[in-house]
Amino acid sequence: MSLLVTGSIGIDSVSTPSGTVDGVLGGSAVYFAFAAVQYVPVRLVGVVGEDFPPAFRDVLESRDIDLTGLEVRSASRTFRWTGRYEGDMNEAETVEVNLNVLAEQAPKVPASFADSKTVFLANTHPTLQRELLAQVSSPSLVVCDTMNLWIETERDSLIETLRAVHGVIINDAESRQLTGAVNLIEAGEKMLGWGPTFVIIKKGEHGALLVTAEGAVAIPAYPTKKVCDPTGAGDSFAGGVLGFLAAEGKHNAQTLRRALVRGTVAASFTIEDFSLNRVRDLSRAEVTERVDQFLGVLRFD
Amino acid sequence: MSLLVTGSIGIDSVSTPSGTVDGVLGGSAVYFAFAAVQYVPVRLVGVVGEDFPPAFRDVLESRDIDLTGLEVRSASRTFRWTGRYEGDMNEAETVEVNLNVLAEQAPKVPASFADSKTVFLANTHPTLQRELLAQVSSPSLVVCDTMNLWIETERDSLIETLRAVHGVIINDAESRQLTGAVNLIEAGEKMLGWGPTFVIIKKGEHGALLVTAEGAVAIPAYPTKKVCDPTGAGDSFAGGVLGFLAAEGKHNAQTLRRALVRGTVAASFTIEDFSLNRVRDLSRAEVTERVDQFLGVLRFD
Repeated sequence: MSLLVTGSIGIDSVSTPSGTVDGVLGGSAVYFAFAAVQYVPVRLVGVVGEDFPPAFRDVLESRDIDLTGLEVRSASRTFRWTGRYEGDMNEAETVEVNLNVLAEQAPKVPASFADSKTVFLANTHPTLQRELLAQVSSPSLVVCDTMNLWIETERDSLIETLRAVHGVIINDAESRQLTGAVNLIEAGEKMLGWGPTFVIIKKGEHGALLVTAEGAVAIPAYPTKKVCDPTGAGDSFAGGVLGFLAAEGKHNAQTLRRALVRGTVAASFTIEDFSLNRVRDLSRAEVTERVDQFLGVLRFD
Repeated sequence: MSLLVTGSIGIDSVSTPSGTVDGVLGGSAVYFAFAAVQYVPVRLVGVVGEDFPPAFRDVLESRDIDLTGLEVRSASRTFRWTGRYEGDMNEAETVEVNLNVLAEQAPKVPASFADSKTVFLANTHPTLQRELLAQVSSPSLVVCDTMNLWIETERDSLIETLRAVHGVIINDAESRQLTGAVNLIEAGEKMLGWGPTFVIIKKGEHGALLVTAEGAVAIPAYPTKKVCDPTGAGDSFAGGVLGFLAAEGKHNAQTLRRALVRGTVAASFTIEDFSLNRVRDLSRAEVTERVDQFLGVLRFD
């Protein structure tokens, strides 16, 4: 049941048609953790600077998230991202980004995390992803994400990372960029050819596509009118998927389909408010109710 | 079971990454008819010119499509459309369009069609849509489509048409343009406010959204790598939906969900080849097989 996530922990400033927030908790590993923790305890590996607010640490500690792997560097500053969404909010416009501590040496996986069975490597340099993975002794499920920067600058290293994982969770634009395929099923199949046994392509408000050797499965997004801030939706989706797979202890095609529902529901909560506001205190009962309701929406026979 | 469709019958020239065809059979009513005829006999109301090839008439007559309402004007020319698709093929670029006979007087609904129970008003001038509908004595299900041109130039008349129908099948860009809502569920609800009891918003490769008083239901597109030519996909979708509803004789929420599957499958066949090439001789067994297979893809519990 042990689920390790390594990725960014950040301080965000976000502007959407619903409003603006400044200096709020964010980062891929954080969004992932709050979704996954609905299903299993989460082990967080990441690094922040001396400016990381104690209140943010309190938020993380309020759930079953083990912070043994959270390194605080006193001479550094935390990763900062300022973004803006407009119109249909399908794409974030990055206004400003300061890597800060993320540009320094990567954090270490603590010895007490080395026995983790499920590992999610959120987006970072693909070589770092492999170095982090090498510190886990015998994981049974490893999944990674990536981003356009590494596809452009570190393609060979990224493909080497793909050879080392069981699954990939990636967005549509990146999967096209990485494979050169316009059709997303073809893109997924090309990625399967590099090693993973499953590829999940995230399509934002249009849902997600699962590609395995058994074929392609498409799931729509949860139909909602309440979109306040899409930040973290993709990481929450991955957290819901991986948390569920970790709890189930398997990742066959049927379990993956069920996991897609959990990922979709996790993302649907995250986007209802800024930062972690909606999911910070989210109860398992609320999650279960929406999962059941979404399964009802998905009945077509 | 009687289903009447009125819309365009055209001669198309289309270029896609898969190739180019010149002077092939097309038009909204034609694509609709070939999808709907899988479920019920179809009555076609439309107008062509003296240049309409006898071979195209033969294609229409090869299925259970009643051409009593097909008017041939000897002094006129058939509607012609030349279009091009590139990249992800999500949008057609119109290279050339000649309304020809479509710019003249509308065709009449033959007396033998006046008892039609289900009516689909494909895209045309909204006043014409109402005039055509007025020639049907007591329809139990009326559904319309529209396009950006009428939203821009005939908005009031279009809303009057919406007041006269049970359902709307419209694409995402048009539903946003018509309602001013960015969120598609909100767009659907605004349209419900004008009178229809259901709104189906087509999202191309991203599937469709059904909005009723009971809420929103999203269905993904059929996952396929074989996209040769998207022309007619939306009309085929509408034909599959309406054909199924006509055969079932009801359009409650549950039947509408089942109809979405049939519409999606109809579109999935159309896009596999140019023009009507794939659906012209499509068997009911092929349709049933794909419906069953798609229902299997849509299982998430």
